[in-house]
Formats: sequence, C-alpha cells, structure tokens
Amino acid sequence: MSGGFDRLEAHTVFEGKIFDVLEGTFRHADGQEAVRQWVEHPGAVGIVAHDGEQVWLVRQPREATGDFDLLELPAGKLDEPGETPLQCGQRELMEEIGKAAATWEPLMTYASSAGFTNEQCHLFLATDLSDAAGHGVEGERVTIEPRRLAELDAVIAECRDSKTLIGLMLLRHRLRA
Amino acid sequence: MSGGFDRLEAHTVFEGKIFDVLEGTFRHADGQEAVRQWVEHPGAVGIVAHDGEQVWLVRQPREATGDFDLLELPAGKLDEPGETPLQCGQRELMEEIGKAAATWEPLMTYASSAGFTNEQCHLFLATDLSDAAGHGVEGERVTIEPRRLAELDAVIAECRDSKTLIGLMLLRHRLRA
Repeated sequence: MSGGFDRLEAHTVFEGKIFDVLEGTFRHADGQEAVRQWVEHPGAVGIVAHDGEQVWLVRQPREATGDFDLLELPAGKLDEPGETPLQCGQRELMEEIGKAAATWEPLMTYASSAGFTNEQCHLFLATDLSDAAGHGVEGERVTIEPRRLAELDAVIAECRDSKTLIGLMLLRHRLRA
Repeated sequence: MSGGFDRLEAHTVFEGKIFDVLEGTFRHADGQEAVRQWVEHPGAVGIVAHDGEQVWLVRQPREATGDFDLLELPAGKLDEPGETPLQCGQRELMEEIGKAAATWEPLMTYASSAGFTNEQCHLFLATDLSDAAGHGVEGERVTIEPRRLAELDAVIAECRDSKTLIGLMLLRHRLRA
C-alpha cells in the first residue's frame, strides 16, 4: 500500500469549455513530493435502461475520437449546479430517448481514466420505463437505438465505449446470475 | 446516424506534461460546423494476466482521483516512440509485476471517455506466465496484488477503475462461457 498522500496545493493551468486542467503538488507518506496535472471534470452519468425485452442505446458523433456514430448508453455530464447523479440520469434519459423510469438503482461508480482525470462516472439501472416528453432538446445528432436483450452478447462485442461496456456487462451478469 | 463529419482544422491550446489539449473545427454532413476541445492522448494498454489460479493486479496511488491505492490491471501509456500496444503490454507486465507471458491475445480496444478525450485503451489477455527480470523500474509505489480467480466476483465488486472493470468482466464471461 502507498500509505496515502496529502494534496498540498492545486491551481488551474488551463481553463477550457467543458473541462479545466489543474496542476497540484502531493506529498506522499514517505515525505516525497510529486507534481501532477489532471483534467478536472464534473463527473458523468450513464443509464442502463431496459424494459425486459430491449435495452435503449443511442448513437452519436464523437468528434474527439473520430467516431461517426459511437454506440453508447444514454448519458450526460453533471454540469447543472446542485443536480445529483440520479437527477442528472433522469433528465438525460428523458432528453436522449424520451423515457421516464419508475425504478432507479445505482449500479456502479468508477474512474474513467484514473491516470489523468478525476472524472467519475455514475451508472444507474433504470427499469419500469414509460414514454415522456422532452426528447430531442439536446439537438438532432443523437439517434435512438433499441437493442434486444436476447442479443446482448453481440451488442457488447460491438461496443467501444467504456461506460457502455461496463453497464452492459454488469447487466448481462445480473440477467444470468 | 449522423452521416459523419470532416475535421477542418485542429490546433493545440494547452501543452501539458502527460497530455495536450486540442481545439478543432468539424463540419457535419448537414453543413453545420462545431468547435470541440479534447485531451489528445497517446493511448494506453491494460493487461489481464492470469495463470489459471490467480489474476495479477496492482495497487497504486492516483493523485488525480484522490485514490490512495486504486486496484488496477497492470497498465501503462503508449509513450515510447514506435512501440506497438503489444510491446507496451509486454514491457508494462514486466515492469509492474515482474512477469513475462508466452501467450498474448487482444481482448478489446475502447474509448476511455469519448466526450472529451481520444484516449484508446487496448486490453490484452496474457497467459502462460513466468517470472522475469525488470520489476520495480517504475518506482516503489506500485504494490502487486495477486487475487484468486475463484473470488473474481468479489474482486470485480471492489473495482472502481474502468480498464480493470472491463478487463475482469471480459475474463469472467470467458471463464464461464
């Protein structure tokens, strides 16, 4: 074990549109100090929404990765002041696929890429779905793609997005446990 | 589907120690243009190394996330010029846990956080392990933690790191398929 560390100071070295970069100094238990840079991120939420027959995914262009139509869970950033992960999930589910869910269960919270960002992604399982108003407010580039739970293995093999892989593999394990 | 997009230009807006931030302009198929900022990352490799009895994990302090001893796959950045993901995996396995593997198989390549970074993580399955020289060159803060495959469910429940969750859930699915 590392014995832990203290953060001595941190300051912003880049102020961006959707994230900042911070630089900080840390002192480890053995007295050694280390300087680190990382992306300061508000966190994200992903939703595994299914009705027992289908799981509701989306495709959207991801300019950063060069993907024209990455297959993903409905998801979003925690960018509204005071909003909890659950509230963010409820909002994003409505905005991205036009659904509400009567049952929400936290599945997992994990670090997206612990070496260079503090982004935490909160995954929820959303069931007892119903249609809701609000779809489309995020713009026209999100395409809804319901997929059959019976073909979950094939869907997972097709995924190339971390939150979607983790969420769908957790779902597969539950459905077969 | 989005119909794709073209990258019209991109330039560096922040030059960091382990990553840069780029800003680029993209034109979508409908003619609309969008400006995006993202973390330009060389990519990473994670290794699911097991001998049929144990899977070899590590703990290390992650200053960015505030984790004192995050449980992770052996892993590293693709930061040596000309190194392939496989070569990087072989080097990291030796450096982090002092093992070589006679059998390597690509498991999955995925985007860590497609909304703000182009980081791709390459996961390999490494088996037929043997002891190798080289452990410890990365410094003293990596602790080796072998875990029994028989308790894989409990290990996965303990994980909070994306590559480790994805790698170990892929392993679990294979072992039980």
